Amino acid sequence: MSQQGYVIGHQQPDTDTICSAIAYARLKQIQGEDVTPARAGELNPETEFVLQRWDVDVPTLLEDSTDERLILVDHNEYSQAVSGVSEAQITEIVDHHRIGDIQTSDPIFFLNEPVGSTATILTGLYDDASEEIDAQTAGLLLSGVLSDTVVLRSPTTTDRDRDVAGRLAKIAGVEIEQYGKKLLEQKGKIGEKCPREMVLADFKEFEFGTHTVGIGQVETVEPTVVLNQREAVLAAMDDIVSQRAYDELLLLVTDVLEEDSTVLVAGEHSETVEEALDAEFTNREVFLPGIMSRKKQVVPQLEEAFC
Amino acid sequence: MSQQGYVIGHQQPDTDTICSAIAYARLKQIQGEDVTPARAGELNPETEFVLQRWDVDVPTLLEDSTDERLILVDHNEYSQAVSGVSEAQITEIVDHHRIGDIQTSDPIFFLNEPVGSTATILTGLYDDASEEIDAQTAGLLLSGVLSDTVVLRSPTTTDRDRDVAGRLAKIAGVEIEQYGKKLLEQKGKIGEKCPREMVLADFKEFEFGTHTVGIGQVETVEPTVVLNQREAVLAAMDDIVSQRAYDELLLLVTDVLEEDSTVLVAGEHSETVEEALDAEFTNREVFLPGIMSRKKQVVPQLEEAFC
Repeated sequence: MSQQGYVIGHQQPDTDTICSAIAYARLKQIQGEDVTPARAGELNPETEFVLQRWDVDVPTLLEDSTDERLILVDHNEYSQAVSGVSEAQITEIVDHHRIGDIQTSDPIFFLNEPVGSTATILTGLYDDASEEIDAQTAGLLLSGVLSDTVVLRSPTTTDRDRDVAGRLAKIAGVEIEQYGKKLLEQKGKIGEKCPREMVLADFKEFEFGTHTVGIGQVETVEPTVVLNQREAVLAAMDDIVSQRAYDELLLLVTDVLEEDSTVLVAGEHSETVEEALDAEFTNREVFLPGIMSRKKQVVPQLEEAFC
Repeated sequence: MSQQGYVIGHQQPDTDTICSAIAYARLKQIQGEDVTPARAGELNPETEFVLQRWDVDVPTLLEDSTDERLILVDHNEYSQAVSGVSEAQITEIVDHHRIGDIQTSDPIFFLNEPVGSTATILTGLYDDASEEIDAQTAGLLLSGVLSDTVVLRSPTTTDRDRDVAGRLAKIAGVEIEQYGKKLLEQKGKIGEKCPREMVLADFKEFEFGTHTVGIGQVETVEPTVVLNQREAVLAAMDDIVSQRAYDELLLLVTDVLEEDSTVLVAGEHSETVEEALDAEFTNREVFLPGIMSRKKQVVPQLEEAFC
């Protein structure tokens, strides 16, 4: 038996991060490795719904990963990883984001693919290992694909995501649009949160050169639920900027049905953001038709403008 | 047709880097991509022999990669990449080393596996794509595997490397030990070089925290050819340290038959190297039984000691 370790996703976990950690830990266990799925923070309502729907235990909360062996899924940047990561041993990475700043001393398995979800890649790893995907695991993986691609509507969606989702839905015994609608309803529960929670529920921190930028995203079918509380949300964003010494903070309020986003900003570098997004803020707000993906339509542009 | 680009390996190219660039460019071309194999420096005698043996053109020398689209093979660190890489667009990476410092703005395909050669991974990518490997490509890939694993003798060799080598040898129509012996003879030609060339023929630069360390390796069946010129080699090493402002420089003279290495050092931080390798230098030299792999038995240890 190999040394004990964890499979873990990013802070502020979302459905793809949690379901990928569980599904990859299962594959590794089948292959004889002593790994446990873990999480780096509290679950959002959508992920809670998914774990209940498929009757799966909530992964262990790992508060500090110092001296642990970690397989990272769905992220590859130190600023997004579990606390203590710089003192942990990273033994594998499976992800679908830009290549970040994680370095290792030894050669490790690192697979990053430009597809819509980490769950899509993991389905491929089950195939590579010739391991069958059971109905429960298929339900988890399908949830990861559909959540990250906004039910295959996000511009990050690839043909592989569509193929994989079709296969997984069959195994799981659900219909994609019907099950996807339930996930979207859960995403919509953001309106029950306080403004600070809205900003931080799906939140990532980036190091662009010497600048630290936070980007939150609310994916919802009812953006007005957030935008009607505009002043309170902006105040919460200002608080976060000063508490965490961010250079800039963006909140993308994404209408998943209309496929557009309203962006709110806080911080001292909003002009750089305007340049990056080729847009002009009025009262710290701008409406961007066609923008749905933080990863593909916002992060690369900001990185270029800030670096 | 996609945009034009290059598949390119590291500076001071070796056989695995060159053969991997050619083989991956071929696969990409079959898949309809407009890519050309390239190299970041002069060929060593072994690689020249391999390209002649399999009747393959020498890849284009890319002097400056500014504004080019690059697929990197066999490295993933800026300090080892072709000139201009920080102003190039990296579109893919396939490698088998530690995870280095390359970052991208967009999600890309990055596959790193802890196996003996990049050629081993590329053979798997041909399989994944269900593309047949012709005899010439098999000859190139086999040369990459056998060169990087010192004919399957290096401690970096995995069962996958052995399996792949067996398959490729069959397709190429050669016998592994017999063909491997020819490669070893070419590695032995190091004795014809001047001391500076010996140090730099197979050379890599590493950033360990704030320290820059160069590590050269001579893999040979006759280490005395190098060690008999000890004083001249050490003088050449001192010159390189001062010209390039290295914190430290190591030369591994590896006896591929006896499976050991003699290490020579230059620079101000030899005590850190002693600590890293758990060895004591006498007159800037130490003999290390069982040490054959820079990547697996030297780099991780130095990184830990220097960082």
